[in-house]
Amino acid sequence: MVDILHKVGIKSSSQNEVYGALTTIDGLCGWWTSDTRGESKVGGVLEFRFGAGGFDMKVLELQPAKQVLWQVIDGPKEWLGTRISFNLRQEGEWTLILFKHEGWQEPVEFMHHCSTKWGVFLLSLKSLLETGMGAPHPKEIKLDSWE
Amino acid sequence: MVDILHKVGIKSSSQNEVYGALTTIDGLCGWWTSDTRGESKVGGVLEFRFGAGGFDMKVLELQPAKQVLWQVIDGPKEWLGTRISFNLRQEGEWTLILFKHEGWQEPVEFMHHCSTKWGVFLLSLKSLLETGMGAPHPKEIKLDSWE
Repeated sequence: MVDILHKVGIKSSSQNEVYGALTTIDGLCGWWTSDTRGESKVGGVLEFRFGAGGFDMKVLELQPAKQVLWQVIDGPKEWLGTRISFNLRQEGEWTLILFKHEGWQEPVEFMHHCSTKWGVFLLSLKSLLETGMGAPHPKEIKLDSWE
Repeated sequence: MVDILHKVGIKSSSQNEVYGALTTIDGLCGWWTSDTRGESKVGGVLEFRFGAGGFDMKVLELQPAKQVLWQVIDGPKEWLGTRISFNLRQEGEWTLILFKHEGWQEPVEFMHHCSTKWGVFLLSLKSLLETGMGAPHPKEIKLDSWE
């Protein structure tokens, strides 16, 4: 099992603000994909669409202002069963996000792609909170010909 | 042992162009850190500086237009002995880079940071080659209060 790890700090923000961007449809539409639907409550399912494809996530844990944990229940086979977590803490004026997408079976090329792409979207989240403007799909930086 | 993985595609580029940005001092200064010195030849040492700190890399392998492999010989203790590789291939007008920073002892918080930061710098490399303008240190996106 191998994991994708990231850490992003957001300046002049708060754990509540960041938590809102991770746990509301409006927030998620503002940095990951503008086609996000579903219910952000424990046991609920969030549907993230990127053109024809996408991911369905079951919400496993929500600790207000602290932690979000999802599990992939539909999407590309490499993602099925993997878990995605965001852990938040405050250091002065910076809100720090520790991100993990864990449980990949193998470090396949698609995992390399998804690692960079998570970086792109976490920078979009940072931009949304720091400037009011994210770059969610379909406006995000493209990393390959098939995107 | 755990690894940082990334994949970045560069549009309207070639393996030769990307290889040049990875193996010349001018190229490296254009996307990673503007304070890069040393010798980019097998057995040579490259010195990358970021203010007071930085990394020294021994060049282990150079396959023109295909592969670059470095080993960290000085820098933060978590980086010592780790290896950094760039593998290139062409698909139509896209040059694809498979990146690996392998051999971390533990998935410490600093590894999360470095994973995202490599993403930031690989996007800088993409920008350098696609637009002529990278964002090398000290101009790169800051991810934490201590940067």
